[in-house]
Amino acid sequence: MARIVMKFGGTSVADIDRIRNVARHVKREVEAGNEVAVVVSAMAGKTNELVAWTRTASPMHDAREYDAVVASGEQVTAGLLAIVLQSMGIHARSWQGWQIPIRTDNAHGAARITDIDGSFLVKRFGEGQVAVIAGFQGLGPDNRIATLGRGGSDTSAVAIAAAIGADRCDIYTDVDGVYTTDPRVEPKARRLARISFEEMLEMASLGAKVLQVRSVELAMVHKVRTFVRSSFEDPDAPGMGDPINPPGTLICDEEEIVEQQVVTGIAYAKDEAQISLRRVADRPGVSAAIFGPLAESHINVDMIVQNVSEDGSKTDMTFTVPTGDLDKAVAVLEKVKPEVGFDAIQSEAGLVKVSVIGIGMRSHAGVAATAFRALADKGINIRAITTSEIKISILIDGPYAELAVRTLHSVYGLDKH
Amino acid sequence: MARIVMKFGGTSVADIDRIRNVARHVKREVEAGNEVAVVVSAMAGKTNELVAWTRTASPMHDAREYDAVVASGEQVTAGLLAIVLQSMGIHARSWQGWQIPIRTDNAHGAARITDIDGSFLVKRFGEGQVAVIAGFQGLGPDNRIATLGRGGSDTSAVAIAAAIGADRCDIYTDVDGVYTTDPRVEPKARRLARISFEEMLEMASLGAKVLQVRSVELAMVHKVRTFVRSSFEDPDAPGMGDPINPPGTLICDEEEIVEQQVVTGIAYAKDEAQISLRRVADRPGVSAAIFGPLAESHINVDMIVQNVSEDGSKTDMTFTVPTGDLDKAVAVLEKVKPEVGFDAIQSEAGLVKVSVIGIGMRSHAGVAATAFRALADKGINIRAITTSEIKISILIDGPYAELAVRTLHSVYGLDKH
Repeated sequence: MARIVMKFGGTSVADIDRIRNVARHVKREVEAGNEVAVVVSAMAGKTNELVAWTRTASPMHDAREYDAVVASGEQVTAGLLAIVLQSMGIHARSWQGWQIPIRTDNAHGAARITDIDGSFLVKRFGEGQVAVIAGFQGLGPDNRIATLGRGGSDTSAVAIAAAIGADRCDIYTDVDGVYTTDPRVEPKARRLARISFEEMLEMASLGAKVLQVRSVELAMVHKVRTFVRSSFEDPDAPGMGDPINPPGTLICDEEEIVEQQVVTGIAYAKDEAQISLRRVADRPGVSAAIFGPLAESHINVDMIVQNVSEDGSKTDMTFTVPTGDLDKAVAVLEKVKPEVGFDAIQSEAGLVKVSVIGIGMRSHAGVAATAFRALADKGINIRAITTSEIKISILIDGPYAELAVRTLHSVYGLDKH
Repeated sequence: MARIVMKFGGTSVADIDRIRNVARHVKREVEAGNEVAVVVSAMAGKTNELVAWTRTASPMHDAREYDAVVASGEQVTAGLLAIVLQSMGIHARSWQGWQIPIRTDNAHGAARITDIDGSFLVKRFGEGQVAVIAGFQGLGPDNRIATLGRGGSDTSAVAIAAAIGADRCDIYTDVDGVYTTDPRVEPKARRLARISFEEMLEMASLGAKVLQVRSVELAMVHKVRTFVRSSFEDPDAPGMGDPINPPGTLICDEEEIVEQQVVTGIAYAKDEAQISLRRVADRPGVSAAIFGPLAESHINVDMIVQNVSEDGSKTDMTFTVPTGDLDKAVAVLEKVKPEVGFDAIQSEAGLVKVSVIGIGMRSHAGVAATAFRALADKGINIRAITTSEIKISILIDGPYAELAVRTLHSVYGLDKH
């Protein structure tokens, strides 16, 4: 017997037929003798519809009212899944965030979970009940519904798993696991059996949109063993109920990964834009003067490259922002130009950031050099490079994205055998 | 300054444009210095969509889960209206039943309000806040959302008006008041300026679908002065903000109606079916033996006519049920035939019940005779008659419905002047 959390995303509960299929997955785990809590998202498209209504009502709407409107999507799915489970003879009950309660801070629209009373759910398990929980939401200190931000149901699931001491948290989605890279770009991409939390964090934030970044952070902190697996497979196919190695990708502590590869995967993020400030005064406080105003304008700055200046007085500063924010960023920078002191702004949109990720890099030299050589061999020009302990990110021109991903995937031996 | 409750039904909040129009009605009352609580229904069609989902999920679904799903419709409207009001500079906030709380009994799907803490809302008024409340729902003793049954938002509004001691409760709908009869049948129908609670109760339960019956009962018990008025008129047209006589129909205590008419209105209910049991044993307990099993099968019996038997041993029993329930009712009766003891069942579907309603009947003789004579003059056959203190109901063949309504409307002088 194990205690497990099962989370199903919007495409997995898009209509009643799919909800029935989800119920069969739940039934399989219940009949295996497990204690099961289920976390659901809104039916696919519902959240977008609700968000659009709040925007039509007023572009500058109140986040507390946005939350009251948008949280209804998950509430509906939870009730419907409970009904279907009951019709299959399973003792199920739906719960909303305010009932358990799942407590959050007051940051409506992007709240963080502060506390979950796991005993509420554990008591239900004792009564043989399957708890079906509306994801993406909790109860703020103002006694109002607070939502966790888009994709928040993943975070709900991991937080609940931590609160009840679950043996694992299964994130069911429309893909069957985490791949070495995007299979639409590189058909030779392989599904990973395991990936460490740290690597997944890099994969998630770099554009492999399988899991919300915050949910991975939370899983890492609380060491929640998290499976990414498909809800579209036959719930009763052989191996689906395997308690140790179910089909999918296990995100876990690196110690659980015995044969660590040097490189685990290749991620990419499109629509990056590069901004270069030429001949910036090289003095203390200049970075703050540049990036402070950008942050205040809610522009997400990603790669930042600053070279040591030749003479210690002037330097070039390069960084990337999403292409959609480029015009806004340039306007902000023109405004602070007198204060910062630089000669010119140069910018370029439509770029791509390709990243090589792997915990094994820590102990292997030459990983970066291999990437640079492989890209050079294909004639791909490198615009900027940033590195961390477990990743190398390379900014290149947009049209070379797919070629670069395939090249790197191959050079590190990630292609299917 | 007055304290008022404004309730808007599904067609009045069907989309964001209509919600904007509703907000203008609210703004008018706020700017007149009133304390305002607003109660809203789900956007037109939403409740039907949610109900259909629960039925598809399982025809025999759990009422507690039905409630969790279906209550979401009002929640969405309340949030959207609060957003629109805020965008107009009005300090508004949405509230769900569990937050106030509006306490109900445990009869999920058809719950009754047991208690509302009016001080919660009065405190908000003191802060200059307009409370936008999700109708149709409250919090059951099991700490779960409980809905009040279809049309329950009218009941929410009246109950809230009673709890906060409101000066009046304005029910905004897609018609501009209560008419002497259905204007689609008789174009000469007049809008009533006032109607007593008792009369409205008869009108509501007899097919004039303006207000939920329970809301009228509640208004009568708590003496809530209730206006039925249109949300589709220009919110700023002359007279709309009249605090004493706004356009619409006032439902009030009969003492407030100075010039009481003998007959106030003509109501009708289509799709009635008549069942006659021939030669029923005329002994104590026979009525219970007939109507008990029908009630247990959730068949709503309406008119009941039993004549005194000639010799004290056998009688005929006639009653009506909705045409849709006829086959089920006959099957139930065939089953209890040995126990009840009767010779035969005769039935007829597609009948119509026409009713003459008026508090003035109490003190005026000959009202019924006038009806019978007028119908006879048109060659309309009367199948059955039941009467109460303030109404006469007559069962006739379906095709004569419109003719009978127009005839009665005219004979009691209700036609437009």
